Amino acid sequence: MKRLRVAIQGERGSFSEEAATKLLGSQTSVLPCATFAAAFSLVRGRRADRCLVPIENTLAGSVHENYDLLLEHGFWVEAEVNLRIRHMLIARRGVALRDIKKAHSHPVALAQCRKFFARHPKIEPVTAYDTAGSVKMIVEQGSRDAAAVAGRAAAAAYGARIVARNIEDDRENFTRFLLISRTARQRPGANKTSIVFTTKNVPGALFRCLATFALRDINLTKIESRPWRGRPWEYLFYLDFLGRPEATPGRQALSHLAELTSFLRVLGCYPRSRPR
Amino acid sequence: MKRLRVAIQGERGSFSEEAATKLLGSQTSVLPCATFAAAFSLVRGRRADRCLVPIENTLAGSVHENYDLLLEHGFWVEAEVNLRIRHMLIARRGVALRDIKKAHSHPVALAQCRKFFARHPKIEPVTAYDTAGSVKMIVEQGSRDAAAVAGRAAAAAYGARIVARNIEDDRENFTRFLLISRTARQRPGANKTSIVFTTKNVPGALFRCLATFALRDINLTKIESRPWRGRPWEYLFYLDFLGRPEATPGRQALSHLAELTSFLRVLGCYPRSRPR
Repeated sequence: MKRLRVAIQGERGSFSEEAATKLLGSQTSVLPCATFAAAFSLVRGRRADRCLVPIENTLAGSVHENYDLLLEHGFWVEAEVNLRIRHMLIARRGVALRDIKKAHSHPVALAQCRKFFARHPKIEPVTAYDTAGSVKMIVEQGSRDAAAVAGRAAAAAYGARIVARNIEDDRENFTRFLLISRTARQRPGANKTSIVFTTKNVPGALFRCLATFALRDINLTKIESRPWRGRPWEYLFYLDFLGRPEATPGRQALSHLAELTSFLRVLGCYPRSRPR
Repeated sequence: MKRLRVAIQGERGSFSEEAATKLLGSQTSVLPCATFAAAFSLVRGRRADRCLVPIENTLAGSVHENYDLLLEHGFWVEAEVNLRIRHMLIARRGVALRDIKKAHSHPVALAQCRKFFARHPKIEPVTAYDTAGSVKMIVEQGSRDAAAVAGRAAAAAYGARIVARNIEDDRENFTRFLLISRTARQRPGANKTSIVFTTKNVPGALFRCLATFALRDINLTKIESRPWRGRPWEYLFYLDFLGRPEATPGRQALSHLAELTSFLRVLGCYPRSRPR
């Protein structure tokens, strides 16, 4: 049986790889890419079967770039997975906590470990491009006094050691990843639908759009707005609801919503990830 | 007359400084801070009169950290300003575009200039902590083959030269900044109110909350949700509406909304920034 080739953004050992393993098991061929756009391009060019990308983080919000890429390519959401983000302080084997003077990582990861750095003022946070990439760098450079902040998969990927565990400030730090495919596929148990739509910026426009769900007792699991690129004063809404676009009452709600919106796209229907 | 002391995040010449000058004029004493938290702390400790922080970008979305800090400190929004983000390629004087092999900047700024880097494959983007800080660095290091991507104020601040102008991919790149004060102040012409509230995740909860505005023909200029930190399955909503919290119909809408929410806070009422 051929292995599923899944493109991700980030180095080996990144949180995206952790999410891929959690969702698809370890028998997956993970293809690291420098950017999200590159991960989508591999799928477009059939060099990857799927891509797995973060779509929102409970602390940092939505990853608009991946919504944009999803719309641009017309791809389909096939599955979702929530990953608890646990940051580790990782160093080369033989390096102890007291030896460490610098900790390299992505600025977002460093910002999520503020309390750890406040407790360890001798360790200076240093910004870098990537979490897992920082582990790779300190291992390759043979640093005796530098560490990196990354997920546990990065320690395993580069043969490094976890010096301090779960150093993140906030335990409610989850990233939701979407598995994206070129064509519409619906897995058994699909019960959650993601859509994007726009309303005119007139009083009550969003209220009327939400009425199409509320009047049918459909539960929303996400609603977010953002200014629509290139269309000042118009807004793009991301909305997830529990239901399927081809079954009652989801079908009726979408048909009603289409009357009220200038743009409406179903991004996919997939099984809801288990509550955290 | 004493100069207004305004804390900002970022180095001299940052977009925050550009925004401060646009909103308050050049007779302001700008206090650069390493982090948003530090800017709020200066206001808390009365070492700054105000802080000016980005709250959302039309491409990258809301800056949740600043909403969190605003709630945590119980501060008040006094004004808003929209700044068009124009990225410049900046180098030391005497350095020409053809000499440049590397361009340093914050990863978000680099990502917003993808088309420029595609047209100039000999220039390698290199991630750094800060946009204006990258200009400072290349000037201090005396680089002959390095440039930085930052706003025009950074070139002026460090005596550097703009080698290429407006290299951002997207002209609809605006950042909205808020001027924050310790105590509630309402400027003349205040006509826009920012609130934060939470609903239980039950069907129709948000619909009912929006009804409090829609039934009174109050226009919303922003609605965004995010998972509430530390309260899985509950959501925090950021909402801006045109109106004032103490005048009809805004007062009635807020009173009605209070019946439907478990948490509701008015963040401030201020004059709406002119349409872009």
